[in-house]
Amino acid sequence: MRAVTIVLLAVAGLAQSGETPKPASSNVMNAPFPAVYADGRASFRLRAPNAAKVQLQPGGSDNGLGLEPIDLTKGADGNWTVTTAPAVPGFHYYWFVVDGLQVNDPGAQTFFGWARDTSGIEIPSPGEDFYLPRDVAHGQVRQEWYLSKTTGQWRRAFVYTPPDYDKNTSARYPVLYLQHGAGENETGWSRQGRANFILDNAIAAKTAVPMIVVMDHGYATSLTPPPPTAPATAPPAAAGAPAGGGRGAGVLAPPSAFEHVVIDDLMPAIDARYRTRPDREHRAMAGLSMGSGQALQIALHNLDKFAWIGLFSGSAPGGDLATSYSGAFANGAEFSRKVHLLFMGAGSAETRVTAANDTARAGLGARGVKNVVTFTSAATSHEWQTWRRCLKEFAGKLFR
Amino acid sequence: MRAVTIVLLAVAGLAQSGETPKPASSNVMNAPFPAVYADGRASFRLRAPNAAKVQLQPGGSDNGLGLEPIDLTKGADGNWTVTTAPAVPGFHYYWFVVDGLQVNDPGAQTFFGWARDTSGIEIPSPGEDFYLPRDVAHGQVRQEWYLSKTTGQWRRAFVYTPPDYDKNTSARYPVLYLQHGAGENETGWSRQGRANFILDNAIAAKTAVPMIVVMDHGYATSLTPPPPTAPATAPPAAAGAPAGGGRGAGVLAPPSAFEHVVIDDLMPAIDARYRTRPDREHRAMAGLSMGSGQALQIALHNLDKFAWIGLFSGSAPGGDLATSYSGAFANGAEFSRKVHLLFMGAGSAETRVTAANDTARAGLGARGVKNVVTFTSAATSHEWQTWRRCLKEFAGKLFR
Repeated sequence: MRAVTIVLLAVAGLAQSGETPKPASSNVMNAPFPAVYADGRASFRLRAPNAAKVQLQPGGSDNGLGLEPIDLTKGADGNWTVTTAPAVPGFHYYWFVVDGLQVNDPGAQTFFGWARDTSGIEIPSPGEDFYLPRDVAHGQVRQEWYLSKTTGQWRRAFVYTPPDYDKNTSARYPVLYLQHGAGENETGWSRQGRANFILDNAIAAKTAVPMIVVMDHGYATSLTPPPPTAPATAPPAAAGAPAGGGRGAGVLAPPSAFEHVVIDDLMPAIDARYRTRPDREHRAMAGLSMGSGQALQIALHNLDKFAWIGLFSGSAPGGDLATSYSGAFANGAEFSRKVHLLFMGAGSAETRVTAANDTARAGLGARGVKNVVTFTSAATSHEWQTWRRCLKEFAGKLFR
Repeated sequence: MRAVTIVLLAVAGLAQSGETPKPASSNVMNAPFPAVYADGRASFRLRAPNAAKVQLQPGGSDNGLGLEPIDLTKGADGNWTVTTAPAVPGFHYYWFVVDGLQVNDPGAQTFFGWARDTSGIEIPSPGEDFYLPRDVAHGQVRQEWYLSKTTGQWRRAFVYTPPDYDKNTSARYPVLYLQHGAGENETGWSRQGRANFILDNAIAAKTAVPMIVVMDHGYATSLTPPPPTAPATAPPAAAGAPAGGGRGAGVLAPPSAFEHVVIDDLMPAIDARYRTRPDREHRAMAGLSMGSGQALQIALHNLDKFAWIGLFSGSAPGGDLATSYSGAFANGAEFSRKVHLLFMGAGSAETRVTAANDTARAGLGARGVKNVVTFTSAATSHEWQTWRRCLKEFAGKLFR
């Protein structure tokens, strides 16, 4: 984390050659700013003639734009501008702070993160296009509305169907349930994450089998008051904050309201409305940050329903593995027969998470747990480029 | 328009009984403000301790929140608040102006309008639920990506499929192409417009036949420079501004880049990927405001492909109908054989549009054009509640 950050902040605003930066692909139509240079520097502009101070606040503990607020400089025309040092490739949340007020960038699309619609910028990754639309067959992302008995409310899930879904009308497909992070929602994996393009490209290259991916909203409040030890609603904490310890590492908590939604409401709806292979061998659950904790808890509670688990940037099994998680890992051979993959990924700058992943892999291995895979995303932190790469790696190992 | 506006502004901020307002359904999760009273008054709040002046700016010429900026009052806690007079039911764009800077409301979801992601508020409509999710079978809204030969870019369309689409795998369906207004995009009809719920409810009630609805992005720039008389890209003008006269009333303009996208790129993709009935009898085109102009132009250019036309809040055929639109209406009997419905709708407060619709209906009738229907939405203006009602009325008459 340190090295990446220092480079970012060291040369902010450095003037270079006459290259014209390109409007970010994440901009609203026709907006010239923010704009990105070939080396990843980004120029921001906000018109605020009356403001006394304008800063750019990167939205994360280290999301690729740095850690600290970046000052913009006022021009005679009332525009405030700054060019950052080269940013880490990928998607980054940010906002402006104008005389103390948090403000979105009118030139950028907003993305749901930090529990609000927040500006985002996409920095291209030289030589890396696994998450971009290529000229291959494309699947669809479908908005699926379902009435939840658990919450009493209509909920919306996003469902990726693979390119051949509507052609091979007798084929049935395995299903990955894929969760977002804290302060995000069901739109995150297809908008910030580009999960559909990642799957399209991997399926076209035959590095992943065709599958359905279900991306639900990770917050729920039960109509029935939960027991006092099981908070029904996780607070919408900062999306950038590492998660997974919220329930206490090593503890298998009582089922959350969200788990009831997944098991009692969502999964039956998906299996009824889509041509799924509705058995544990063909069902996976994964999530990022807060979602990794949800994936682990829900999968361990329901090993009759899930055989593949993915933990992105959080929730590596910890504690005394002989007894933690109510003894889920006590018998390594038994666990290995049930779970075909326990994947733990993180960004290289998330050193605490990568260390926890390594420790978990060693500890699980010592207990005879097989099928444990760790993955480290090079030169990224607790951010979407990490999770895009995690999805690519994880999806490539599923259902084989 | 006058009467509605005057009521809105007259009693803004009036204190009433102890009723607690409810967070708007358009808020981000857990946001207490904006909040709506049973009578349609709305309370707004923004924390801005350092600001000298905060106003609420309704985003439209008359979008239900009024015309003029509304002052907020600063409290000792640094929160600025206001309660408006009863707003018109439906969806309204708005933003705050903080010491001259346009700012979104962090408590509200953003919606693409006014050529940026803009705050919105939903005011319930007492006794009217045709656009809300009911416990009926639901269709899907699918994100469909296609590579446009016209623009050389990947484009995204939203496609509504009716509830039985995946069950009756041999059934084929008629298609409605449905366009948004200026400064909006392909997300507008399903997010602000709730087109999917309108169709779900109408299909369940058998007041509309099952159909596919294609909602594309209405802006395009051709790879090939257009002739000088045909601007390839319409400027993203304000969403609230009445449209339809941009190309000159009564003029059949050369095909726009967007028309090439629809005819050469989008329609072939839809007919290849969906079980459509790919003939003119089963294809309709409609749009709102700027989109009404696009619908009229594209349909008149392509009467071999469209037999049903809907114009919402704009573009009523004008001029000398014997010669205007290159003589499209010169032979009323011939036009009537081809076009089974020419629907023109508007809000009651859009008095210029409703007058133009009435004039067009009379003029077309005098030329022997049948199948002309006008519709006026009660007590609404150039805004989404008008267009939701237009869609319900129009869809109910299609393909029968």
